[in-house]
Amino acid sequence: MIRFSQTVNSLRTSEIRDLMSLATRPDIISFAGGMPGNELFPVEEISTIYNNLPLALKQTSFQYGPTSGYPPLLESLKEFLRKKGLPVDSNQLMITTGSLQAINILAKVFLDPDDIVITENPCFIGALSAFQSYRAVIKGVDIDEEGIDIASLKKMLTSLPATPPKFIYLTPNFHNPAGILYTEKRKREVAGLLQEADLPLIEDDAYGDLYFDEEAKRRTVPFKALYENDLTICYTGSFSKILGPGFRLGWMLVPPEIFKKAELCKQSFDACSPNFTQVLAHEFVQTGGIDIYIERMRGVYRRRKDSMAAAIRKYFPVEIQWTEPRGGFYIWLKIPPQIDLLAVLKDSIEHGAVFVIGQTFDPEGKDNSHFRLSYSHTPEDKIEKGIEILGAALKRALGQI
Amino acid sequence: MIRFSQTVNSLRTSEIRDLMSLATRPDIISFAGGMPGNELFPVEEISTIYNNLPLALKQTSFQYGPTSGYPPLLESLKEFLRKKGLPVDSNQLMITTGSLQAINILAKVFLDPDDIVITENPCFIGALSAFQSYRAVIKGVDIDEEGIDIASLKKMLTSLPATPPKFIYLTPNFHNPAGILYTEKRKREVAGLLQEADLPLIEDDAYGDLYFDEEAKRRTVPFKALYENDLTICYTGSFSKILGPGFRLGWMLVPPEIFKKAELCKQSFDACSPNFTQVLAHEFVQTGGIDIYIERMRGVYRRRKDSMAAAIRKYFPVEIQWTEPRGGFYIWLKIPPQIDLLAVLKDSIEHGAVFVIGQTFDPEGKDNSHFRLSYSHTPEDKIEKGIEILGAALKRALGQI
Repeated sequence: MIRFSQTVNSLRTSEIRDLMSLATRPDIISFAGGMPGNELFPVEEISTIYNNLPLALKQTSFQYGPTSGYPPLLESLKEFLRKKGLPVDSNQLMITTGSLQAINILAKVFLDPDDIVITENPCFIGALSAFQSYRAVIKGVDIDEEGIDIASLKKMLTSLPATPPKFIYLTPNFHNPAGILYTEKRKREVAGLLQEADLPLIEDDAYGDLYFDEEAKRRTVPFKALYENDLTICYTGSFSKILGPGFRLGWMLVPPEIFKKAELCKQSFDACSPNFTQVLAHEFVQTGGIDIYIERMRGVYRRRKDSMAAAIRKYFPVEIQWTEPRGGFYIWLKIPPQIDLLAVLKDSIEHGAVFVIGQTFDPEGKDNSHFRLSYSHTPEDKIEKGIEILGAALKRALGQI
Repeated sequence: MIRFSQTVNSLRTSEIRDLMSLATRPDIISFAGGMPGNELFPVEEISTIYNNLPLALKQTSFQYGPTSGYPPLLESLKEFLRKKGLPVDSNQLMITTGSLQAINILAKVFLDPDDIVITENPCFIGALSAFQSYRAVIKGVDIDEEGIDIASLKKMLTSLPATPPKFIYLTPNFHNPAGILYTEKRKREVAGLLQEADLPLIEDDAYGDLYFDEEAKRRTVPFKALYENDLTICYTGSFSKILGPGFRLGWMLVPPEIFKKAELCKQSFDACSPNFTQVLAHEFVQTGGIDIYIERMRGVYRRRKDSMAAAIRKYFPVEIQWTEPRGGFYIWLKIPPQIDLLAVLKDSIEHGAVFVIGQTFDPEGKDNSHFRLSYSHTPEDKIEKGIEILGAALKRALGQI
């Protein structure tokens, strides 16, 4: 007889997977997935790096490495993060198998069943699934264009039962799915509230390098750089958007006492992350190849965003509300209440374009009024065509055509 | 204030890590780690594969893949496993980030805190740490040269409290650390007991391909191939010993209802295993390069085992008991009760050789009478020298020199 754990019995299949399978059908224009386009990866650069590795280093890449990461990569990544103002000397850095693993490990470090976690609503679905897998109670707080809503957060923090939440999870830079970039003022207000509540922060910064203008760049300075002395902050990042998700490399930068616990978890999870891709990532970072690549990608994603924004203005009904993002991968749109979003999705797929409905990103699965468009993996000519298809579906839903 | 989870607070640092750090000191001859020697990896073969990949496939290797694995690798691996007689059509295959992740995911699928797990004693330390990380109660059952001790297993199964164990974890082929290979008779007896107790089996087969003779080969047929119709068996395997640990690729072959739960866990752990190394592994398996490589490695490891066995006969006191392994990486040795093993370890390290003490592999951390020698990552000339050093330390401990 098979008797499953209570935890695994409480998990449900995510709808995103069915959408993702549609997203890879070649005849459909996809705005669904949150990944770089295949044609954008630095394949040439990595091939050159690989073929120039001395034999001994190639052999190292086949071997186990330390649980916390390939030591040269830890060093080169520290320098990369130091440039963002992050406290790399007083904290400890760990390479993880994608930044989702960093978030999952931190969830394991903090969470017992029924513990409360505060997130933004909407929220990155991977983080939601990680928190759910430890049977946490997730409390979503609404956001606006400047960040998490301060009044709602304050209310949440004062209205909770006697047992305080274990942590708050935020994505201040080019939020997934909402695309927003926190203002400095909002960060200051949030930091004040968290300090008052003595609440640890998990700061997910997977998109911070992908700003589209200089003012946006200035606003990407992490909480971890600004409020290190006032708050307990676990900072996570990823190579998925600035090298390739297939490398499965992310990281966490955390205080030493949290690092010690996280390392024990990592040891029992997968012993270490792939040395093979860590060796390549190190060379990419250390030679500065990554900086040149990121600079090029900023241009590519900005142009894709511009194409999508222009097409939305041209083809979408005026009732659809949205804000132009200043970096990252996503546009988050709000529809009028009379629209049935699932029907629009089905209609749009039938005509050849797919996106993700807002429900997916709502901790309570209730949202019926938003959807997410990703421009990261769709070439400009297809963006206009796909937005035209989706615009027609929206107009049909509104009875305009 | 940082409030850690109960789970993470119950985890302790493993001693193996300090030993491993010694194992990589260049002036020390190491019999400690359970990995292939760096000089053995198929670097040339993989370089050729990589450079011959068409651009589109290289791009795919940078991208996310399905949670269950890169589809072509699932297919080629199925054929590889089918040759072992495994039921690849009625079960489902998942690629994991090393086989430790497969074991960890299965632990998450089955275990609530205080659940009982039965293992062999000694037992693979990675599995112990995975089970402990879900706060399981681990009950070790002694082994002999033919497998887990049947009388002890029977006694364990009948003496347990009302709540039955969730599963038993076994490594029938070239056990880590004990080096043993189950006999067919013992497997039949174990299968009978498990069927009677209705107890699921996690079968870890990381070493089964590395047999040293034809009779040993015949005995490596997995439980999963022999008793699929009688038992619930979750079969795990690894590319770490037959390609390279740095690829971080393992797998599980499990019944569909277990697969469904395992896939949900995998999704929240790291979304998918590295496509970069999966693409390379697929080509290595599909072209048959892996079969040629494994055949060569059988010869290399057999010669290393022969060198170590000869050196043990030459340099060790006769009081040390051991059996020559018929495959795998390890020799497991028993010392007389009057020897202080930790003192021998320190003496041996001082003179330039390191190994792992048996305590590390005991679920209760009590064993003081065994140690493990690994011959997998030490060239033959160094093996004799290292065994001479260790033999002298043992003789000093026995007052013989």
